[in-house]
Amino acid sequence: MAPPAPLPLFGVILAGGSGTRFWPLSRSQYPKQVLRLLGSESLLQATCNRLLLRIPPERLAVVTSAAQADVIRLDLHRQGLTNVHLWLEPEGKNTAPAVALAAMLLNPEAGADIMAVFPADHYIRDTAAFHEALEQGAALAQAKFLVTFGITPTRPDTGYGYIKAGESLGSGGLKAQAFIEKPDLARAQAFLAEGGYYWNSGIFLFRRDVFLEALARHLPDIYQGLKSLGPGASQEAVAEAYRRIPSISLDHGIMEKAGNVAVVPVDLGWSDVGTWSALHDLFPADDRGNVILGRALDRDSRNTLIFAQDRVVGTIGLDHMIVVDTPDATLVCSRDRVQEVKDLVAELTRQNQMETREHLTVERPWGRYTVMQGGPGYKVKKVVVDPGCRLSLQLHHRRAEHWVVVQGEARVTIGDRVSTVLPNQSVYIPLETAHRLENPGTEPLALIEVQTGDYLEEDDIVRLADDFWRVPK
Amino acid sequence: MAPPAPLPLFGVILAGGSGTRFWPLSRSQYPKQVLRLLGSESLLQATCNRLLLRIPPERLAVVTSAAQADVIRLDLHRQGLTNVHLWLEPEGKNTAPAVALAAMLLNPEAGADIMAVFPADHYIRDTAAFHEALEQGAALAQAKFLVTFGITPTRPDTGYGYIKAGESLGSGGLKAQAFIEKPDLARAQAFLAEGGYYWNSGIFLFRRDVFLEALARHLPDIYQGLKSLGPGASQEAVAEAYRRIPSISLDHGIMEKAGNVAVVPVDLGWSDVGTWSALHDLFPADDRGNVILGRALDRDSRNTLIFAQDRVVGTIGLDHMIVVDTPDATLVCSRDRVQEVKDLVAELTRQNQMETREHLTVERPWGRYTVMQGGPGYKVKKVVVDPGCRLSLQLHHRRAEHWVVVQGEARVTIGDRVSTVLPNQSVYIPLETAHRLENPGTEPLALIEVQTGDYLEEDDIVRLADDFWRVPK
Repeated sequence: MAPPAPLPLFGVILAGGSGTRFWPLSRSQYPKQVLRLLGSESLLQATCNRLLLRIPPERLAVVTSAAQADVIRLDLHRQGLTNVHLWLEPEGKNTAPAVALAAMLLNPEAGADIMAVFPADHYIRDTAAFHEALEQGAALAQAKFLVTFGITPTRPDTGYGYIKAGESLGSGGLKAQAFIEKPDLARAQAFLAEGGYYWNSGIFLFRRDVFLEALARHLPDIYQGLKSLGPGASQEAVAEAYRRIPSISLDHGIMEKAGNVAVVPVDLGWSDVGTWSALHDLFPADDRGNVILGRALDRDSRNTLIFAQDRVVGTIGLDHMIVVDTPDATLVCSRDRVQEVKDLVAELTRQNQMETREHLTVERPWGRYTVMQGGPGYKVKKVVVDPGCRLSLQLHHRRAEHWVVVQGEARVTIGDRVSTVLPNQSVYIPLETAHRLENPGTEPLALIEVQTGDYLEEDDIVRLADDFWRVPK
Repeated sequence: MAPPAPLPLFGVILAGGSGTRFWPLSRSQYPKQVLRLLGSESLLQATCNRLLLRIPPERLAVVTSAAQADVIRLDLHRQGLTNVHLWLEPEGKNTAPAVALAAMLLNPEAGADIMAVFPADHYIRDTAAFHEALEQGAALAQAKFLVTFGITPTRPDTGYGYIKAGESLGSGGLKAQAFIEKPDLARAQAFLAEGGYYWNSGIFLFRRDVFLEALARHLPDIYQGLKSLGPGASQEAVAEAYRRIPSISLDHGIMEKAGNVAVVPVDLGWSDVGTWSALHDLFPADDRGNVILGRALDRDSRNTLIFAQDRVVGTIGLDHMIVVDTPDATLVCSRDRVQEVKDLVAELTRQNQMETREHLTVERPWGRYTVMQGGPGYKVKKVVVDPGCRLSLQLHHRRAEHWVVVQGEARVTIGDRVSTVLPNQSVYIPLETAHRLENPGTEPLALIEVQTGDYLEEDDIVRLADDFWRVPK
């Protein structure tokens, strides 16, 4: 059987969210879209792969903010997704500018004049139904509709936006009469009883020219601000343009105002994975309604999600709770209050707590490091370098480093000397000395690094040469 | 004003419990009695100090099991309590053998023929009332009663044993008519309504000769097994004697059977600190009933105890819960189910989980170490040596060690060489090499130790010389 034909679309994946509602698993430097919440792929990787089945990589772009560029690039890189476009917004300004920027940067001659916009961090169980829906949506988009997908509600959920549908437009589409913000419970119940209301999936399809026309009409500031940008526009030009445009969502800015909006009811096994509670619902539960992952030992809890990792978590008699444990932070939350996790994170951020920014283990293109402990004048890390990889050639102004190899084989450059360092051997890197760490072997290289100095942050790295993207060329 | 006269007592502190109900703060090698649950003193230290106000140290003995000897000795040592007796049972056999052993080992000519028996791990707010009660109890004990203290119940608690009191015996004592095991709620409510029932405080006073007479009559196996032991009996003799005697509590074995038992009602501000819930009640709560300690951020919880340490714990909307976070293990438990913590620990112990045995930070007579991370072939520790202290002269058969000093000044012996190692300097200790670490300075010495080898447990230490009690003389 021949593979299905490519879809006539240019896919735009919006990957700029921070996802603070998944704290402590999500951090500002490790947002929801790169979390492996549902299997071995991150939500972003799964979104890309779901589209790459029917869209070639040169017609797929991931849009994120410059602040998240490294973590998003690394997440793509880890799955070999190096040939999709990565377009950076200087700063997040909600979805309308992101989509408008994509419309400017994509090459209209690349073989598709329909743009399809996808959140990076949703879950879709039924990939075949999803692809079918895209074909259906593309037909409506070709007919000059701004198309969105509506999920038939199964419960009076107050966490979603709703779309009220009207008469049929043919091709499975209905006229979208109104976009409704997250309703209260009474309204959500009324929508469910009345019928004709759909959850707003956040997926949109439209012809590029139709979108630009709508943009020019409904958000003229954004259209005017960005229209001079084209394929290959420089980061400086984008930064300059972004400075003057407002922050607004696609829903508010265009969809709610346009007359030619179609909603296509779909059944995709979809979830926005919006909260810990939504995630709980996506896992198979035991006969008490519990989902217990990791090194947890429970006695007699009910309807509870327990997400442990390496540490032991003991639980007794919990009901309707969320417990999430990470190496440096723990959340214990009533299931009814999961929407407030973002408020908790906002307060921790206000207090400038590190645990909102990064995990103790930080992924790098060459492997990863784990901060084991720090104190006045020192910091201890475990550094793991993947086979065949090397860190940048670098130096530090304010710290010296002691490395003790504990696994694998290290090739170490210090100044102009290169040596091999084996397990149970150590080397010393004085400050102000150019050095490089490489794993020439076929197994991971692990070493313990003891840093000493008066300043021990990541920004005291002067990169002299790099195999990755981290030295401006 | 002259200090109050010493009490005419020999104090026996029973410190053999494991206190698994305070997991994850308590561990089998760090039991409840050495926890600093209520201030800067451990429960054992507080118990000793409360008695030392009125009993000289040579008339005070702590009885514990050989397995807990090091941690109990260290806890006493840390408060300078080096001159109280420490008597070791070869194994815990409940309270009757422990008290019987103490009766044999104490020197009846030491100036007190009344023994007073105290749990090591209870809380008493009113020290003056406690001392008064002891005087009163001593008078009854002199009159040949087996005396216990009864706490007037303030609620129908099902976590305590009860004593039913009868007619007055004079000197504030009442005849103890019955000892009742932890009752169910209905019975506890009836006791409270009826009156004349007291909580069994676990404190006992009796003349040594009266106790030995009761022991010979009611527990002849124990009496016969131990009667040949006297002051200064060897560990071997005690071990031999213990092999043959049964395990039984003082309450069951003697108090419930003897006719001459008196109960003295007392009001001491007493708690057995038996569970996390009991501990919660001892702290001042906020106006929602919460006690929140450590680095916790709470939103809108009620009647909840949150015990955090260095890690961030975020909590939202909890009600009637216990949350206890330690560096390697977390407990989340309904307040109604705190009695089951011991069952959880039993299950973890059955699974042979390290987190039931030791904390990551382990106290030593010379300071402490913290296990930071381990993996195949290596382990990383932070070692802190108190000023003026040194570790034993030791060697390891199966591991080498790399030390990087990060604070203070180390005097390091390796083989027959002694050197000074300063911050940002490192040394290497090959395996099979005698070495010693000393802090000759006046500030703490901290170093990072990376161990490498095929076996990295604490029992690979051959001690050649030691400043403490750890090399048999």
